[in-house]
Amino acid sequence: MEIKSLFSELETLKDKGKYEFEGWVVSNRGNNKITFITINDGSTIDNLQLVIKNELNEAFATDKIALGSSIKVAGELNLTLGGKQPFELLVSSLTVLGTVAEDFPIQKKETTLEFLREIPHLRHRTKLFKAVMLIRNSLLFEIHKYFQNHGFLNVAAPIITSNDGEGAGETLLVDDETKDYFFKQKAFLGVTGQLHGESYAAGFKKIYTFAPTFRAENSHTSRHLAEFWMIEPEVAFWDLKKIIPFADNLLKTAIKNTLKNYKSEMEFLNSLDTNNSLLKRLGDFINKDIFVMDYSDVINELKKHKENFEIQDIFFGMDLASEHEKFLSDKIVNGPVAVINYPKEIKAFYMHQNPDNKTVAAFDLLVPGIGELIGGSQREANYDKLIQRLKELNIQQEPLQWYLDLRRFGYAPTSGFGIGFERLVMYVTGMSNIRDVIPYPRVSGQIKM
Amino acid sequence: MEIKSLFSELETLKDKGKYEFEGWVVSNRGNNKITFITINDGSTIDNLQLVIKNELNEAFATDKIALGSSIKVAGELNLTLGGKQPFELLVSSLTVLGTVAEDFPIQKKETTLEFLREIPHLRHRTKLFKAVMLIRNSLLFEIHKYFQNHGFLNVAAPIITSNDGEGAGETLLVDDETKDYFFKQKAFLGVTGQLHGESYAAGFKKIYTFAPTFRAENSHTSRHLAEFWMIEPEVAFWDLKKIIPFADNLLKTAIKNTLKNYKSEMEFLNSLDTNNSLLKRLGDFINKDIFVMDYSDVINELKKHKENFEIQDIFFGMDLASEHEKFLSDKIVNGPVAVINYPKEIKAFYMHQNPDNKTVAAFDLLVPGIGELIGGSQREANYDKLIQRLKELNIQQEPLQWYLDLRRFGYAPTSGFGIGFERLVMYVTGMSNIRDVIPYPRVSGQIKM
Repeated sequence: MEIKSLFSELETLKDKGKYEFEGWVVSNRGNNKITFITINDGSTIDNLQLVIKNELNEAFATDKIALGSSIKVAGELNLTLGGKQPFELLVSSLTVLGTVAEDFPIQKKETTLEFLREIPHLRHRTKLFKAVMLIRNSLLFEIHKYFQNHGFLNVAAPIITSNDGEGAGETLLVDDETKDYFFKQKAFLGVTGQLHGESYAAGFKKIYTFAPTFRAENSHTSRHLAEFWMIEPEVAFWDLKKIIPFADNLLKTAIKNTLKNYKSEMEFLNSLDTNNSLLKRLGDFINKDIFVMDYSDVINELKKHKENFEIQDIFFGMDLASEHEKFLSDKIVNGPVAVINYPKEIKAFYMHQNPDNKTVAAFDLLVPGIGELIGGSQREANYDKLIQRLKELNIQQEPLQWYLDLRRFGYAPTSGFGIGFERLVMYVTGMSNIRDVIPYPRVSGQIKM
Repeated sequence: MEIKSLFSELETLKDKGKYEFEGWVVSNRGNNKITFITINDGSTIDNLQLVIKNELNEAFATDKIALGSSIKVAGELNLTLGGKQPFELLVSSLTVLGTVAEDFPIQKKETTLEFLREIPHLRHRTKLFKAVMLIRNSLLFEIHKYFQNHGFLNVAAPIITSNDGEGAGETLLVDDETKDYFFKQKAFLGVTGQLHGESYAAGFKKIYTFAPTFRAENSHTSRHLAEFWMIEPEVAFWDLKKIIPFADNLLKTAIKNTLKNYKSEMEFLNSLDTNNSLLKRLGDFINKDIFVMDYSDVINELKKHKENFEIQDIFFGMDLASEHEKFLSDKIVNGPVAVINYPKEIKAFYMHQNPDNKTVAAFDLLVPGIGELIGGSQREANYDKLIQRLKELNIQQEPLQWYLDLRRFGYAPTSGFGIGFERLVMYVTGMSNIRDVIPYPRVSGQIKM
């Protein structure tokens, strides 16, 4: 049986019921009369306490069972509902399947996150990483479920593309080891699935991607990875007014269900959070209506607070820095905020140009503590305006012709957005370094395993 | 409203109910008295018939509405339950949102699959590709659901790795356009998530990956892609006897639910299948118990039929060719078969060595028409045996040390397998070329879009 099922079926458990468990040893204390061993099986961060009595200690050599060993046990479940633990297993059989060498680096004593980053193949055997990865998995499935329940088609946008992203030049090149150009042309690792996703929205109406994306990001920050997962929905017939509440509701639902299904993990993560305010932040997010604010109003507000910033030159047309975004959601709005209608100069060529000729129908969803969690827009439907914008930005038209052509073949106004999945996991777990929310982080100059 | 919902809620629909729809025009016929337009919105291959009467034809210029146009309509739903269609929409308002240029390549007339492969951004607007992609999406979600309902954790195995696969040399190299070696070492696109997945099974017990994998496959066949999606579960504490029925049940459940939820699409695909036998094949798969056969018995059986093969030299130790696999499942077993206990020489180093010293606890699941759909094994738990095998195969130990170390840190017997997702989609849709079951196929010498 799984330990998580045991905890969630507490009310139906029978005293003295017979059970079998498999798991890894978390602690081991006692003497040759009575030994208490706790095991974890990865289904939850909650552990099961085993009790081994009398001569069985010698028979099972319990004093030799080291932390991290994999074991298989059977016995009688004793309900101790008033006690520290709701139950314990009175062990009648125990087999050690895998012993542990002395250099096993995961020990009871505290280890730093930096140290654990050196051993990505083992760090999930700490309680912290177990909690983080369980939450990551929950969010992944909740997001898939939400899209599927709302009639969205999952689209496998290609990873290897001939498009050099948005011309940002931060693209990883794919090549072949033995032959020059396996693909007979320059090939890149995709920085977004959006353009390909849009082609499928034109026909399937509601689509989403959920896949790895890549960026040759040379900055070593706590918020950037060279390989990360993105969720990119795209909906034909929707404008900005429809896509923003959808994005908001998607996040609220995914977070709400995760809080409900992973109580122990979220309480544990909350206990590690500065001021223990993780659960409060997430509760606020779920319960508050999203606040929508025009970029130009944001600029006016930020001007009033410029003494708080390193970059104090606040003007219409500027790209908001991370400090501005955080201040806006942390202090001014004190909650999540969707900033809309950005100046067209600082946004991508495909965004819908507003009638004012200055701004585009873009939105960024900013949340306290993290800053930007979502970026999206209504897409420009007008072929000629797109061509014009490409010219202004000096982007080659030819490689994008297939994308432009979508506008000539029954295009409907389309909106979409991208969620950096790891940013979302950071937001929900309270982890402050993006390398700690993905199993094997990839950054410049470093590939562990 | 979505057209799929309309069809699935037939029983609760009210005659004369008011509805709005958005979609793309599939056909347009009639005159200035009455026009029939059918639209599709991508939620199903089923279309909705619109009826436009009298002076509205002129008002909406219905004679000018071309195939593929995106339109928005509202009107009254008339139930015609006895008729060819269960309902039609008597249109009171109609807006064309996106017109269609004359060179729109998707027309009523038949087009070849080869031609459609040249326009991957548009081919999903045919009924065939709409059906295929709806089935692909269904299988994806059913697989996620099955794993999640059975307590599996989704693991993002890294795409970019420092491991050169299994030394097969068919690995795509990742590089950076401007600097030599962004990662300061050779970096490859992963050919499998298994090794990294195993590290997470040691702690989470049941895990799965569902992600793109890559192979610099130079052969231009109808069964190979350079970029394809793999599903790779891995379970600690499980042996071959446990993992085979799990694999079988996963596929049966995913296929059964897809047949149930996508009736129109599956009937349409069946109508295109040689002998219209697709639904029968899938029905057989769902209803028959899986047949398990020892590799050595397979060899003996194949010897009896050698006149059927191009490769007639059948012997213990040989790698089964595609023709042998197909013959085995098509003719000998006449259904899906799991072949187990292959000679160790033809299998990967990490597979569990059986006591006979000749074979490993591997299994391949073969299905009629496709051949291998799944390949898996119990993994070798013994550190020394693994080292020995690496030496025999001349594989460098150092880059794999982290993987070998898993055996030293509380390893439990572990089993897993890989499903080539596109192969599965081929099997369920009856499509015969793998390039037609993924939105943007990547093969050597070719990246469209």
